[in-house]
Amino acid sequence: MSEARDLFRQLFPITRSVAGEGNRRTLRILSRVSPLRLLEIPSGTRCFDWVVPREWNLREAFIEDSRGRRILDAREHNLHCVNYSEPVDRIVPRDELLPRLHTLPSLPRAIPYVTSYYQPRWGFCVQHSRLRRFRGRRFRVRIRAEKKKGSMTLGEAVVRGRSPEEILFSTYICHPSMANNELSGPILQSLLLRHVRTLQKPHYTYRFVFCPETVGSIAYLHLRGRQLKKKVRAGYVITCVGMSGKFTYKKSRPGNSLADRTALAVLAEQGEKFEVRPWVPSGSDERQYGSPGFRLPVGSLMTRMYGQYPEYHTSLDNLGLIDFPKFQACLELYQKIIARLETNRTYLGAVQHGEPNLGKRSLYPTLGGQKKNTDQLRAIRTVCAFADGRSDLLEIAGASGIPFATLAEAAEKLRAVGLLRVVG
Amino acid sequence: MSEARDLFRQLFPITRSVAGEGNRRTLRILSRVSPLRLLEIPSGTRCFDWVVPREWNLREAFIEDSRGRRILDAREHNLHCVNYSEPVDRIVPRDELLPRLHTLPSLPRAIPYVTSYYQPRWGFCVQHSRLRRFRGRRFRVRIRAEKKKGSMTLGEAVVRGRSPEEILFSTYICHPSMANNELSGPILQSLLLRHVRTLQKPHYTYRFVFCPETVGSIAYLHLRGRQLKKKVRAGYVITCVGMSGKFTYKKSRPGNSLADRTALAVLAEQGEKFEVRPWVPSGSDERQYGSPGFRLPVGSLMTRMYGQYPEYHTSLDNLGLIDFPKFQACLELYQKIIARLETNRTYLGAVQHGEPNLGKRSLYPTLGGQKKNTDQLRAIRTVCAFADGRSDLLEIAGASGIPFATLAEAAEKLRAVGLLRVVG
Amino acid sequence: MSEARDLFRQLFPITRSVAGEGNRRTLRILSRVSPLRLLEIPSGTRCFDWVVPREWNLREAFIEDSRGRRILDAREHNLHCVNYSEPVDRIVPRDELLPRLHTLPSLPRAIPYVTSYYQPRWGFCVQHSRLRRFRGRRFRVRIRAEKKKGSMTLGEAVVRGRSPEEILFSTYICHPSMANNELSGPILQSLLLRHVRTLQKPHYTYRFVFCPETVGSIAYLHLRGRQLKKKVRAGYVITCVGMSGKFTYKKSRPGNSLADRTALAVLAEQGEKFEVRPWVPSGSDERQYGSPGFRLPVGSLMTRMYGQYPEYHTSLDNLGLIDFPKFQACLELYQKIIARLETNRTYLGAVQHGEPNLGKRSLYPTLGGQKKNTDQLRAIRTVCAFADGRSDLLEIAGASGIPFATLAEAAEKLRAVGLLRVVG
Repeated sequence: MSEARDLFRQLFPITRSVAGEGNRRTLRILSRVSPLRLLEIPSGTRCFDWVVPREWNLREAFIEDSRGRRILDAREHNLHCVNYSEPVDRIVPRDELLPRLHTLPSLPRAIPYVTSYYQPRWGFCVQHSRLRRFRGRRFRVRIRAEKKKGSMTLGEAVVRGRSPEEILFSTYICHPSMANNELSGPILQSLLLRHVRTLQKPHYTYRFVFCPETVGSIAYLHLRGRQLKKKVRAGYVITCVGMSGKFTYKKSRPGNSLADRTALAVLAEQGEKFEVRPWVPSGSDERQYGSPGFRLPVGSLMTRMYGQYPEYHTSLDNLGLIDFPKFQACLELYQKIIARLETNRTYLGAVQHGEPNLGKRSLYPTLGGQKKNTDQLRAIRTVCAFADGRSDLLEIAGASGIPFATLAEAAEKLRAVGLLRVVG
Repeated sequence: MSEARDLFRQLFPITRSVAGEGNRRTLRILSRVSPLRLLEIPSGTRCFDWVVPREWNLREAFIEDSRGRRILDAREHNLHCVNYSEPVDRIVPRDELLPRLHTLPSLPRAIPYVTSYYQPRWGFCVQHSRLRRFRGRRFRVRIRAEKKKGSMTLGEAVVRGRSPEEILFSTYICHPSMANNELSGPILQSLLLRHVRTLQKPHYTYRFVFCPETVGSIAYLHLRGRQLKKKVRAGYVITCVGMSGKFTYKKSRPGNSLADRTALAVLAEQGEKFEVRPWVPSGSDERQYGSPGFRLPVGSLMTRMYGQYPEYHTSLDNLGLIDFPKFQACLELYQKIIARLETNRTYLGAVQHGEPNLGKRSLYPTLGGQKKNTDQLRAIRTVCAFADGRSDLLEIAGASGIPFATLAEAAEKLRAVGLLRVVG
Repeated sequence: MSEARDLFRQLFPITRSVAGEGNRRTLRILSRVSPLRLLEIPSGTRCFDWVVPREWNLREAFIEDSRGRRILDAREHNLHCVNYSEPVDRIVPRDELLPRLHTLPSLPRAIPYVTSYYQPRWGFCVQHSRLRRFRGRRFRVRIRAEKKKGSMTLGEAVVRGRSPEEILFSTYICHPSMANNELSGPILQSLLLRHVRTLQKPHYTYRFVFCPETVGSIAYLHLRGRQLKKKVRAGYVITCVGMSGKFTYKKSRPGNSLADRTALAVLAEQGEKFEVRPWVPSGSDERQYGSPGFRLPVGSLMTRMYGQYPEYHTSLDNLGLIDFPKFQACLELYQKIIARLETNRTYLGAVQHGEPNLGKRSLYPTLGGQKKNTDQLRAIRTVCAFADGRSDLLEIAGASGIPFATLAEAAEKLRAVGLLRVVG
């Protein structure tokens, strides 16, 4: 966990935005955990209904009072400057400044997170409790920020499996200096990517996407969506995986997809209560993956969900909010989901007419007549009976009430003696 | 409501039957509310398993005792004569008369409503409490009634919309001198027809049928059923809409039809408890519209349903039973159903891949990062996400829990900026 | 019932096994109740994953102590010899004998039922309480048993109906000297077969199979499975039908099959509580009938189910366990299932458009307007409305809540006047 802690510390101060140097630095740091391929999508590229924005690189942002005292400085906290602000360098009267100062009266010590990607404007964010510093008639406001044609940067990694069918993980990298939402997402996803690279000949192909939220995933879908639509069997948006609290699973749009069945089965086994929510078109990039033209089976397993804690989208969503053991537990759940996906096969039994003679293959006691309906024998018979080339092990587990692991073990024994083969 | 009251008063005394002058007079009076086309179907016409009966016009019906005192006279109440009685003019002994006298011992002050459309016979109906007047040995019975070849009269009105798809309303006009069942039905339907004629360019075509029950709707189906099967998207039998009591909705045979979904959504919003019943082959003309060869989506929204009040089918179902505010409320519910049908469209979003950029169309705040999941924004996103050309707004409302009106408003905004278009 | 009692007494002592003389004698005795055709399937025949075993005919099996005293003799109870044992005639030391002695410590007075069909071995079964007799160092063990190429014997009877569609009954005949499991099964099935032969022109063709469990039904499916797959509409494995206790119905694999709907409807009407279990691939020959390649709609109606009573598969499952009135009740339930299947038709109404005019066919009172929604009239209208050539009477009963018998009576009346005809 000290590695995760270090990553949080390194990545936290970076001024990320929808496009720009901050994103590239973030992806390069994450690449040290496990290498990422960087995709640069030029500013101005049309992606469905969207256009890739120009880069934004903030150099400096401050406000001085009439006596030249800096009463606000983005060096203290990069949320102080409205993200994607236009440059400005002016003396402004108080009346003009005040509407440009964003505060959260309900959380007076929090700097709110405000962006203006699609409307050129400038502005600052400040703790409501610090508004009283803004006395006097005139202020110097200065935002030195570059908005230039360049490119939006996405990170991508694909780990090839034996099958072209894909499992997708996606996280976003556009929020500056917030910990649960968003840093927990890309950090966990990097560690998960490294884990997947250690798998011996995985069945599925695993795809990991790190992109700015919304326009980033839309651009990625513009680039790869046609392929994803054919290949993705399950996917998850990794976000808000750092705070304590009960797990929340937001289902994929298709519902009852392999993504949902797998996540819910793994959640059911971890013992603690958890919450399940339907797919709705608010939230994160599952909105894009689930849009009517794609309908990808992409859900999201979170710890404390966006919008469900007061510090969300403020400077109070800081490293102190991260519960590292919970973060680790969530990483392990994602690893279990992968293990379950890898084990969950659809089988066709060699004997479809009548049951196979298990005794002659040493899979059944040769002494008949006595009680021997052990869990293992029940699992063996159940797998034989339902190995019809259509139901996967997760479905058989659900229908029979037999634990998945017991069925998987039975299936492996049956496969070993030639009574089952994997299909699909 | 004074108009409704006047109509009840004018129509109540008319001697309606399955065919005859009474029906024509009734339809002519209703035509003054809003014009109807009268269809005359000749006696003897075969309609599926039925034959259109001859006209029946009652001139006089009375019983006199041996001293010449009139102890029963249909001028007092037209239910006194069995509807569709054969003519008779005889002196009959008491033993022969008594089996021809129908009473309701359980409601001794009520004259029962008795018909004999398909078996020639004569008879009288009388309050059980008045049986004691029938002393003496002999009685003169006289029914002067014409049974003649002529035609069965139906009323029809079609209000054309932009679409050839139809909404059907049907009511019956064969019961004499009963108020909740039946007069409330044709009166409400006439007022509803007049309302529909005030709609500006309605989407649907609206069809209104006024017919004798059973053989009348069967004759109408014989005439227009093929067309109705192609065009009717929703329909309602309007009957028993005048008494107080909670609303009852009887579903259409197909169940979960547009008729059912619309009526149930409107009922759910009106606040009071209501009852829902399945389609069963007893009741009114929804039996015919739902018959296996048609299976039209025709339900029925009632206030107090037939068979659910003791005065049903007796002389006690009189004007005193009518709760005019309830009648008005029911009319308004039918108007709301029409409004809902008119508003409930199926949309296809212009952007199917990823979500549309709402900010650039001023449909979303351009300041990002702050809580703004207002009902309206949620509705806008929900309509975009589900505008796949297959789900109508009612279905989206049901699935999302967002009020229909909010979704309709959102859809209108999206349509205005070119992000949605109506399909189907 | 004295006949059933006699059959139990005659059949109980016979040494049945998977193949051999015992099975043939059993089938010949049952043939006296109602004739069976005997099918002989040669040893060594391949049947899907199985091979028909050789015959086993036990002549003698005993153990003597060193003083020549017989301390165990299969003439006392044929369960004493492990079923299908290899022959042996040796003096063995105690250490070698003990592992060959099977006991049930939890039921010390019971001889366990042990078989070894697919692994050549010899052994004995003994009451745990009698183990103390096995003192001394050496014992003479002798099993004189013939294992020879011959054939496995199955009994079959087919009662032709007007339709080629079949109802299948199957029971097993391989367990020696146990009463509830198994003798109650073949005895009840023989009586049921005799009953079916008394039916006047039955609609369905009825097939009765008497076979050794597992390999026997698999061999039968090998012989007739293709045909059964086409023709069987419902079937039942008859087993464990002799003990008191509440009825248990194990559903067929397809679930909601005609077999299930019929059995559950009949069970619902018999008044007592009963248990319903899903199809699982343990139990009896419904495992084979339900195997993925066949998926026949074969359930099983039992009284006390296998595995649900402590005496199961021991010498304590003896005639004293049989509750003859319950056995009789179960036979009657199977007869009712047959009666229900015979009566349950799918009808097409002559009048599909609008309802038929029932009055002119004397199926409806010709006096209208009065309450007459009797059960019979409701049933008549319901059958007319749902006689669409797709729903059978059982489905109509389930949907309408009207008792099956009332609907069947209504259907018969409607058929008699030409308003319905049977389809399918």
